[in-house]
This record gives sequence, C-alpha cells and structure tokens, in this order.
Amino acid sequence: MMTNSAIGIACSNIALIKYWGNRDDALRLPVNPSISFNLQALFSRTEVVFDPMGQHDEVMIDEQQAAPSAAQRVSQHLDLIWRSAYFATASPRPVARVISTNNFPMGAGIASSASAFAALTMAACAALKLNKSEAELSALARQGSGSASRSVPGGFVAWQDAYAYSIAPPAHWDLVDVIGVVSTGHKKTGSTEGHALAPTSPLQMARVADTQRRFELCQKAVLARDFALLAEVMEQDALMMHGVMMTSQPSLMYLLPGSLAIMHAVRELRGQGVPVAFTIDAGPNIHCICEAAAAEQVITLLRGLNGVNDVLVSGVGGAAKAEA
Amino acid sequence: MMTNSAIGIACSNIALIKYWGNRDDALRLPVNPSISFNLQALFSRTEVVFDPMGQHDEVMIDEQQAAPSAAQRVSQHLDLIWRSAYFATASPRPVARVISTNNFPMGAGIASSASAFAALTMAACAALKLNKSEAELSALARQGSGSASRSVPGGFVAWQDAYAYSIAPPAHWDLVDVIGVVSTGHKKTGSTEGHALAPTSPLQMARVADTQRRFELCQKAVLARDFALLAEVMEQDALMMHGVMMTSQPSLMYLLPGSLAIMHAVRELRGQGVPVAFTIDAGPNIHCICEAAAAEQVITLLRGLNGVNDVLVSGVGGAAKAEA
Repeated sequence: MMTNSAIGIACSNIALIKYWGNRDDALRLPVNPSISFNLQALFSRTEVVFDPMGQHDEVMIDEQQAAPSAAQRVSQHLDLIWRSAYFATASPRPVARVISTNNFPMGAGIASSASAFAALTMAACAALKLNKSEAELSALARQGSGSASRSVPGGFVAWQDAYAYSIAPPAHWDLVDVIGVVSTGHKKTGSTEGHALAPTSPLQMARVADTQRRFELCQKAVLARDFALLAEVMEQDALMMHGVMMTSQPSLMYLLPGSLAIMHAVRELRGQGVPVAFTIDAGPNIHCICEAAAAEQVITLLRGLNGVNDVLVSGVGGAAKAEA
Repeated sequence: MMTNSAIGIACSNIALIKYWGNRDDALRLPVNPSISFNLQALFSRTEVVFDPMGQHDEVMIDEQQAAPSAAQRVSQHLDLIWRSAYFATASPRPVARVISTNNFPMGAGIASSASAFAALTMAACAALKLNKSEAELSALARQGSGSASRSVPGGFVAWQDAYAYSIAPPAHWDLVDVIGVVSTGHKKTGSTEGHALAPTSPLQMARVADTQRRFELCQKAVLARDFALLAEVMEQDALMMHGVMMTSQPSLMYLLPGSLAIMHAVRELRGQGVPVAFTIDAGPNIHCICEAAAAEQVITLLRGLNGVNDVLVSGVGGAAKAEA
C-alpha cells in the first residue's frame, strides 16, 4: 500500500436538544435523540497521512503533540475505520500521522471532540479511498465522539440512533450562535466520563422519558422557524440536562457566575421582544441562539457583562467534507 | 368576650431536604417529606390583639401596613384558627390587630413566611386561650405556609404529612447556617405560586419518587452527626429542587452569579477537609451549613466573594413559643 493522505474539515455543532447518556457506552449509542445545527465559524481541520513505513502513530493537536490519552483515542478511531474497510483483513493498519487544528478553544464546552472526530473520520476514509455514505460516515464519527455524528451532515441535524441526518439545509433559517465564553480552561470532567455518570442522577430517567416530546417540539420549531417555541423547548432541555448533571454522583457543576449572568441577561432581552434564547453544553459557556437580525444586539449585551471573557459568533454551517 | 392578646415568637428554619409542591394546594399538604433545623438567630415576633370593638383587621409587618394580599392571608389564617376553637360556632371572630416584625430581610429566600405563620399561630392560639398540642399548632401553622409547620417544634424537625415533629433537640448537633445574602430584593415568584408550578416540570415526579431515599439518608446523617453523608444528600436535594424549578413552565431561575460563586467556593473548601455544604431555598441566597468549629472560616470565605452583599449567621434554634 502506498502513502495515502487526505484532509477532513468539519464544523462544531450546537445541540438544541441535548445528548446526555448512552444506552451503550462502548458504541456511544445515545439514550435519547438530539437536534443540533452546525457552527460554520468553528471547525476542525484534520490531515491524516497513512504511511506503511512509519513506526507508530503520531498525533498533533493544535501544533502540540497530543496527550497520550487523546492520541490513543485517535488511534483507536483509526483502527475502527480500518476494520470497516473491505480490505482490512488482508493486512494490518498502516501507521498514521494525524495533524489536527481547531480554530476555537478546546475542552471548554464548545464541542471540539465533535468537529475533531467528524474531521478525522472524513480524512481517514478519504485517505483510505473508502466509499462511505453520509450515514456510514456519521455512524463512524459517532463511535469516536457521540456528538461528532451530528457534525457530518449539513445544516440542522437530528440524531436518533446509529447516525445523524439533516432535517434542513443551512439556508433554511438564518440563526446565529453568539457564544459567551466564560472560561476557556479545560473542564474537570470530560464528556465521556460525564455521559457515564448520567444514570447516577435520580432525574436522568425522567429527562430521557420526556425527550421524545421535546425532540418533536424542537423539530417542529426548526421546520416552522418558530423562534418562540424554539426558545422555550431549547432552554428547558438545556436546564434539564444541567439538572441531571448537578444531581449526578459525583455532582457535575459546570455553570459559573458568568454563566448565570448571561442566562438572566438573555431572558431579560427576550422579555423585551428580541428573538434570543440560551443553551448550554457540558461546560460554563453560554450559547445564545438568535435570529441573525438580533446578533449585533446580543454581541453588545454579552461584551458588557461581568465574567464574559470572549464572544464567539457563528452562523449555520454545512456538511463535513474531505479534500485529497 | 374581652380583649385578649399574646405574643408569638418563632424561628425561621432551613430545610436540609426540601419541600416543593403540594398534593393539596389549599391544605398545603406536601407532595414529599422534608427535614429542617430551626434558625435560632432569625425569628419573627408577632403580637395578636383580638378586639371585639375593632372595625376590621389591622396587620403591620416590619412597622409598615401590610400589603392587601399579605393582610388577607393573615386574616384568613386567623379565621382558620378561630374555626378550630370549640367556641367558634357561638360567635363571629373578633377583629384583630397583628403586629409582626422579622429580624431579617423578607422575601429573599430566607423563609420569612415560615417564622411569620408559626409566630402568628402561636400568638393567636394563646390570645384565644386554646389548649393545642404541638402537633395541632404545627398543623395549623402549615395551613398558613407549608414550611411554617417545621418552625413550631424545636431543633431538628421532620415533616411528612399533616404536622412536623422534632427528631433531635437543638443541642444534638452544633451546626451553624452561614447565609450568603446575594440579593435582599423581593423575589419575582413567591413560594406559594412556585409550589403550584412544581408539577409543570418534567422532572418533578422523579424528584418526588426519590425523596423517601433522601429523607431517610438525611435523617440518618442528622441522628449520627455524619457530616459527609449530610453534605452529599443535602446538596443533591437542593439541586434537584432547583432542577425542577428551572425546568418548570414558566422557568423559575432563582440562582444568581453570586449564588454560583458561593456554591463553587463551598465545594472547594469542603475538598480541603472543612465540614461545610450548601443548600438553597426558593431564592438566590446560599445557606452554608457547617459544623460550629468551621463557622469562622466559612464566614471569612463568604465575605471575600464577589456578589455577596451580607452574611447572616445562625445556630440551631428551639421551638416556637407564646407569651401573654
């Protein structure tokens, strides 16, 4: 086999209905359906070079050698992709050089693992010249990081089981995510460990049981571009997830004082008629989802708040892609 | 009937296992059991003067004429107490002057209605020379404000259904409540309306279903003076209640940036081995429960935090009482 390389590019995504907990941790099959949209301005770019002459995998993330645990997770994902190929049984996987960059801070509740594993999947499959469907690529990405499944299709995306699929293209609704960055520090408990803790909360089963209702309302809100409905179901969903996180054992308290400052400010602004609502991933940063016409007002609001260190802005992004 | 008067004095209380939601709103019968201790330093003092010559009830709270809604709630409570008397059918209730003072800010998540309705009940029953048991007094207070039932008995108190009862005297465990006052403003949604919203959260049923477990763990922790166990179950319980509040419709977001600052600081201090843990009522203030030996350290911590306007301190208080 010759040296083969490719580049994958994938957006991060922001969930409007959250994924929290697996029905199968190893396969990262989710315990509940979720809905997201891709974040056009926040992406990972990952080059994979398979080199039969190499001695061992090398993984660079943001121009630094990856920590052993991160490098191992990348290698395992490449193993998975190799095993999915028709020629896999004929030979061992060649070692790979992986060079990945994110244009946004990692590990602070902006889903870097989503864009990273989607980009890695795109690059590795292209480098191996595997002819995979979008659903197959999404299912592969999922096994690296659950929410990465949603970064493969474009625009507004639903994920119910093995793979994610687009429910509307990027141009369907001109929404903007104005992210109030409260902390860029790496979070104490990563999402993989967090998902495993979900069942320890006495509230998790009730959250899961109610998810189909929220999923359907959210899908309806997106398809009808009904911001008021989206705001209500999206905030409730995020707060249900944080209710579960805070009451798991041990308790996961991702919110910081600056997070609460933004949340109250967003509700006050919405009370004045501005189409803006918040959602929160497994981190302290607050994603303020608004209609594009309101984005400047929301950016100004966030810049004026105590505890907000930075403001990132993104529209709705397209599907992940690969380049030779 | 002659002019009859008495003074009631009752402590506020802080719940370690929270009451949130009623199985009967009118009777204020709780949907789940709760545990609290009385706050010796935070009390209401209420004088009731029944005057057959009066024209209408007069209610003064903290040296101001009570708002109509508050005055009506007091009058209705006096009606209830009058109807509970053996001589009630013989004559209409005489009008009353009620003069109540709290030595702490009202309506900011420190249960002023608990101490107020306990003190009112004690005073009114004494003024009418009713010979009521502690359980009867607790059950009457409950119908004025649910948590007032717990301010009638002394020390550590459990409330499961119609009335509350002491599970340990004040001297049993030298705990201190160090309250970080984040806001003294009157809250937007009072507890009575809040309780009525509890069933609108998709998480409330799960919270209620799990309460017997938490109640038993907390009672065990109190009786055994097991701080580590108390810390774990108490924080989980408070966060479950706020999980329900945040996800009710409409959403009740009582926490403020300063609340989160205290919560994180308390957990960090506990991580250093200091016996302190937080609980939170329906408001932004954070109650830091600690062993008495740690109180100074906790007070110093809170005074140094952004967003903390005041620090109140109380040990465990005794039963409500009446004076002629």
